[in-house]
Amino acid sequence: MKNILGSNLTVTLFGESHGEAIGAVIDGISPGISVDTDNIDKMLTLRRPSGKISTARQEKDEYSIVSGVFEGKTTGTPICIIIPNKAQQSKDYTKTRGIARPGHADYTAYCKYHGYEDYRGGGHFSGRITAALVAAGAILVSALEKKGIRIVTHIDSLGGICDRKFENYDNDITELLDKAFPVLSDEASEKMNEAILEAKEKLDSIGGTLETVITGLPAGLGEPWFETVESKLAYAMMSVGGVKGIEFGRGFGFAEMLGSDANDGFRYEGESVVTTTNNNGGINGGITNGMPVTFRLAVKPTPSIYQKQETVDFINKENADIEIEGRHDPCILHRAKVVVDALTALVVADMLIGRYGTDYFTPKD
Amino acid sequence: MKNILGSNLTVTLFGESHGEAIGAVIDGISPGISVDTDNIDKMLTLRRPSGKISTARQEKDEYSIVSGVFEGKTTGTPICIIIPNKAQQSKDYTKTRGIARPGHADYTAYCKYHGYEDYRGGGHFSGRITAALVAAGAILVSALEKKGIRIVTHIDSLGGICDRKFENYDNDITELLDKAFPVLSDEASEKMNEAILEAKEKLDSIGGTLETVITGLPAGLGEPWFETVESKLAYAMMSVGGVKGIEFGRGFGFAEMLGSDANDGFRYEGESVVTTTNNNGGINGGITNGMPVTFRLAVKPTPSIYQKQETVDFINKENADIEIEGRHDPCILHRAKVVVDALTALVVADMLIGRYGTDYFTPKD
Amino acid sequence: MKNILGSNLTVTLFGESHGEAIGAVIDGISPGISVDTDNIDKMLTLRRPSGKISTARQEKDEYSIVSGVFEGKTTGTPICIIIPNKAQQSKDYTKTRGIARPGHADYTAYCKYHGYEDYRGGGHFSGRITAALVAAGAILVSALEKKGIRIVTHIDSLGGICDRKFENYDNDITELLDKAFPVLSDEASEKMNEAILEAKEKLDSIGGTLETVITGLPAGLGEPWFETVESKLAYAMMSVGGVKGIEFGRGFGFAEMLGSDANDGFRYEGESVVTTTNNNGGINGGITNGMPVTFRLAVKPTPSIYQKQETVDFINKENADIEIEGRHDPCILHRAKVVVDALTALVVADMLIGRYGTDYFTPKD
Amino acid sequence: MKNILGSNLTVTLFGESHGEAIGAVIDGISPGISVDTDNIDKMLTLRRPSGKISTARQEKDEYSIVSGVFEGKTTGTPICIIIPNKAQQSKDYTKTRGIARPGHADYTAYCKYHGYEDYRGGGHFSGRITAALVAAGAILVSALEKKGIRIVTHIDSLGGICDRKFENYDNDITELLDKAFPVLSDEASEKMNEAILEAKEKLDSIGGTLETVITGLPAGLGEPWFETVESKLAYAMMSVGGVKGIEFGRGFGFAEMLGSDANDGFRYEGESVVTTTNNNGGINGGITNGMPVTFRLAVKPTPSIYQKQETVDFINKENADIEIEGRHDPCILHRAKVVVDALTALVVADMLIGRYGTDYFTPKD
Repeated sequence: MKNILGSNLTVTLFGESHGEAIGAVIDGISPGISVDTDNIDKMLTLRRPSGKISTARQEKDEYSIVSGVFEGKTTGTPICIIIPNKAQQSKDYTKTRGIARPGHADYTAYCKYHGYEDYRGGGHFSGRITAALVAAGAILVSALEKKGIRIVTHIDSLGGICDRKFENYDNDITELLDKAFPVLSDEASEKMNEAILEAKEKLDSIGGTLETVITGLPAGLGEPWFETVESKLAYAMMSVGGVKGIEFGRGFGFAEMLGSDANDGFRYEGESVVTTTNNNGGINGGITNGMPVTFRLAVKPTPSIYQKQETVDFINKENADIEIEGRHDPCILHRAKVVVDALTALVVADMLIGRYGTDYFTPKD
Repeated sequence: MKNILGSNLTVTLFGESHGEAIGAVIDGISPGISVDTDNIDKMLTLRRPSGKISTARQEKDEYSIVSGVFEGKTTGTPICIIIPNKAQQSKDYTKTRGIARPGHADYTAYCKYHGYEDYRGGGHFSGRITAALVAAGAILVSALEKKGIRIVTHIDSLGGICDRKFENYDNDITELLDKAFPVLSDEASEKMNEAILEAKEKLDSIGGTLETVITGLPAGLGEPWFETVESKLAYAMMSVGGVKGIEFGRGFGFAEMLGSDANDGFRYEGESVVTTTNNNGGINGGITNGMPVTFRLAVKPTPSIYQKQETVDFINKENADIEIEGRHDPCILHRAKVVVDALTALVVADMLIGRYGTDYFTPKD
Repeated sequence: MKNILGSNLTVTLFGESHGEAIGAVIDGISPGISVDTDNIDKMLTLRRPSGKISTARQEKDEYSIVSGVFEGKTTGTPICIIIPNKAQQSKDYTKTRGIARPGHADYTAYCKYHGYEDYRGGGHFSGRITAALVAAGAILVSALEKKGIRIVTHIDSLGGICDRKFENYDNDITELLDKAFPVLSDEASEKMNEAILEAKEKLDSIGGTLETVITGLPAGLGEPWFETVESKLAYAMMSVGGVKGIEFGRGFGFAEMLGSDANDGFRYEGESVVTTTNNNGGINGGITNGMPVTFRLAVKPTPSIYQKQETVDFINKENADIEIEGRHDPCILHRAKVVVDALTALVVADMLIGRYGTDYFTPKD
Repeated sequence: MKNILGSNLTVTLFGESHGEAIGAVIDGISPGISVDTDNIDKMLTLRRPSGKISTARQEKDEYSIVSGVFEGKTTGTPICIIIPNKAQQSKDYTKTRGIARPGHADYTAYCKYHGYEDYRGGGHFSGRITAALVAAGAILVSALEKKGIRIVTHIDSLGGICDRKFENYDNDITELLDKAFPVLSDEASEKMNEAILEAKEKLDSIGGTLETVITGLPAGLGEPWFETVESKLAYAMMSVGGVKGIEFGRGFGFAEMLGSDANDGFRYEGESVVTTTNNNGGINGGITNGMPVTFRLAVKPTPSIYQKQETVDFINKENADIEIEGRHDPCILHRAKVVVDALTALVVADMLIGRYGTDYFTPKD
């Protein structure tokens, strides 16, 4: 199952940066879900570049849902979302053909596809493909909200500048959901923006970390071995271009902890079991324990930078220098946020449908 | 596919800590692989506890391969490996039933399996299950070696003490493969052992990080979206109990880097393309680039500690204290090493068979 | 994997009869396959109704390939084929809503999708969806031809009238590939056409059998248990609306045979092993033996007939009568032929890619 | 997923006829199912050869369940069932090595596994493997009964002698469940036994058809395209050695019917929707309609016959004659019955768990 995510609810992405269209097919979805087009629009807008800190490529993502939705609700049969490509620049890509951009998939795609890949603008590896993923995931984000399950991602750090920690999940989530630059602390937000602009001025780019929280998940999700909650989420996240690490709860912080600090004690809070701390990010033994699921992602600096770099020309089989032109983001963390939210929603929905059946999201009345 | 790892080469684990046996079924393997029982024995021995730094439970893992191997070679049909359980203590588990051990899966398994789970000694969640995984993976570790693909894991850090970095992969790998305590630097090794004993004396446990290197992989492996090399490896690793994070190449280190430092330049070395640095851990756009694939895992301190901890009794639905008894490891990193090697081998073999066909490992003459 | 066919090469169908578009996504295809648009056009034309023996709904299937093909060749990334719906009649479907057409999926879709299904014109269950399947399969039919693997289906019988048996596979296949009414014997063809028109006059419909032959397959394909060649083909075929049975080789004829007649002896023909008869349809123990693979399908009469029928109104929960209006085929066998060819090609290509790797169809030079 | 059946509930078979053991792993099962060992024993006994009409190889199948069952109930984690091989004859198989038995998988296995296959007694292709399948399926047969879902198979015809049709499903099912020779009509039963003995005397073997009925299934099961009820059942059945055809409801009989006869009208019976006939075997559009699901299988005569046959020696690459020795069944239909029941139970349980969630079979109290 190469380009397919999920077991019960699946999503397939298709499309290339400069092809006719990109899109996604969602299969296995519950019938009767109201398709919240406002949320699709909002999330697509948040993914789109805007302002000085993003690429100059501006493209309104006019999506169509060509199947699987009838009278505003999911039918239960496959949903195909299409987003035509419109703003391709008529640049001549053949002249840079074979000059591998460092940190990109140009060379590896060539190794894998033997030169048949659509190399224009990164082809199938372009971040543009994530627009389809966001549209698909947005439908589930709304459906999960109705079930009391909320997902939110913020920039946890950027170039060493850290956002504040979550204080009150519900308030913080509500606040973050609409922010174009998803940072809780205004001060940190300002500094991060400055750091991005500084990198941009130096013809450079900058990395950081994202933190995601899922609240409202029932205890008992996950299928060890091997389909743990951590495995499912890690699988999805590690397929996002630029994501090079994931950690749950304290993650790499555990490496310097003792067991007595690391373990989360249990306590009853009324009839519910809670943990006294949440170092394990809501997961024990690969199964949710009812506490918020938390994870962090390492996002590398955008590989497209304007400085001269050493590379190879793999067509002419010789060393070469490259100076990348065109329109690029000095930082993608703020735009990646909705991609992570969307993927998280798809993974969580997949697990819920697996556990509770295909009608999990179907209205009960 | 709940308890099944892989797409082309699959492995299914079964068994509980105190049941009759544990085991694994490998399916989709190439016919004609010589089953290297010496390596199975060696890896099982490395996984077994030994010395003062491990649990006192000593159990020789006498495995049988009951199918799929004929005259010492794989037939191509499913291989079932069985390891009978022998050293279960006749302890009465019913008296601690319901008292959730913090950091363990007792409570979450109860939520998922509604009390039908075999709770004795962690049941299906016990680290003991990894013995079957190691035996299964050991077959592939040897088969990959014959293809020039080597896998090795060492303790990268433990309680803040760091091993040295790899200097010469081939030498370092050869050295590590036989070490009971897989650390390159003797000085670091000594300090780590002291740290473990110190934690043990305090009735505590200690965490760390593992680093894995895969050399000799061809460029062009990986199926984006979504079956990237990072996704496949992360999926497998995040199902190991105690692993709470994974990062590829510089991983979370990217978060504070600029693109100009993060990108790996390309250069020809003879007819081969290499990168001038390997920050991306041998993977660009989810596909191998021919450089060593490197990743690090965050391993939390063993949750079984002998100190009193706050918890709940989920059968009687009340708060409780727990003081864990029995035999437990103050640290599992050295034993986890072969588990990670085995899983890595299974994932890599799965990708190779997917790319090159079912006969990838079959001798050609 | 609900709406997904295949393991290595997968195809997902989407769309409803009266929605915006139907389509297919092909994933896992080898890079470098020349996309033979002539064959797609030809096969789509053969699927389209034509003449007096078909429905009056005439719709040119103008497909677009919006991804996965670059400069006329497959890239190796997912191919999305879109066919917009154009000829929907503006009929008011709400007035017949709830009146289950016998033999159709109206009632069962309601049970499954709880009334959220797009019920207009059969929705996702409409035969129209097969246009996307044909377009997808046509790409593989051509690719297989280049590998020396040929697939052809003819009407084996219709209303009791039998076509002649294959005499010379290569000649017969070539002859059949272009026939709008795929029958080898002209005499049988004429009689079958008369039988269809007779059924049409009686406001009735008529069934029959299709026979498919695959030549040129290598010996050794199939993965027992459970992924036998028969299992894979049966799985695909039994998802086609109207197909209610499949048999390989002598199939149900075996039920009255003795083993001494049923067994196919082996003989060398030069260096090749052949069988002296082909009762087993080219498959022993679920694996191809190098002889032509043959199977037959039972196709029931089109359920849409113009006579009054007993049914229920499942919305108003009462018995009802129905007289179907609109445009319908009195027989679908001749149109089903390319659907079966397409599905066969997809299944065979899936098995070949699984066995020989992702580059199986990639040009070697 | 090569040797794996199912999506939600999966079963993997392993083992060879003359290896150490055969077995099955069931994964994804609901926790809390009472494991009905009486039914496992009964079904294993029915599968075993007995009397003059079966092979002389007598082997009590002493199975152990080594995991996934605790205190007599399923835990929800993988169940491994092991059946040691005990009655292998110490015959020297090397002397017949390479002489392909017609109708068997000897030659095709050689093509697939390149000579590494365990060829003794058919290896992984031996009917013996079905013992493990029967044990696995027997657990689900009992669990389904508790849900009001009954499965039964009888010999529909044998060598042209037909059993009577079902008259009252519940009575007929109850009667058939315990019969060693599963035929409803005593007269037909006697004639069939005679036909088998007659074939045996002629050193020959005989084929027939099996008919299976599933009652009590809810309407709305099936996932078109492609996971229809027919596809799932056909996939499973076509992997059974000797099964060469499957048809649902009227199946191939539809080929000579008109639509007005073929369609099943709907009617309310109280609050339930029923069909006036059941030509479609309880399935419309690939989805159950609440009526009994019925299908028939074509079973070829056992390929092992004692007459001289033409074949090849594929090791020495020359033509050869073969006279099979050893212990073989002149007919396998009566023994195949429980195999079909078991497979049907596994497929149906898989669909139910997919639709209603992992706890479908878990007791509700």
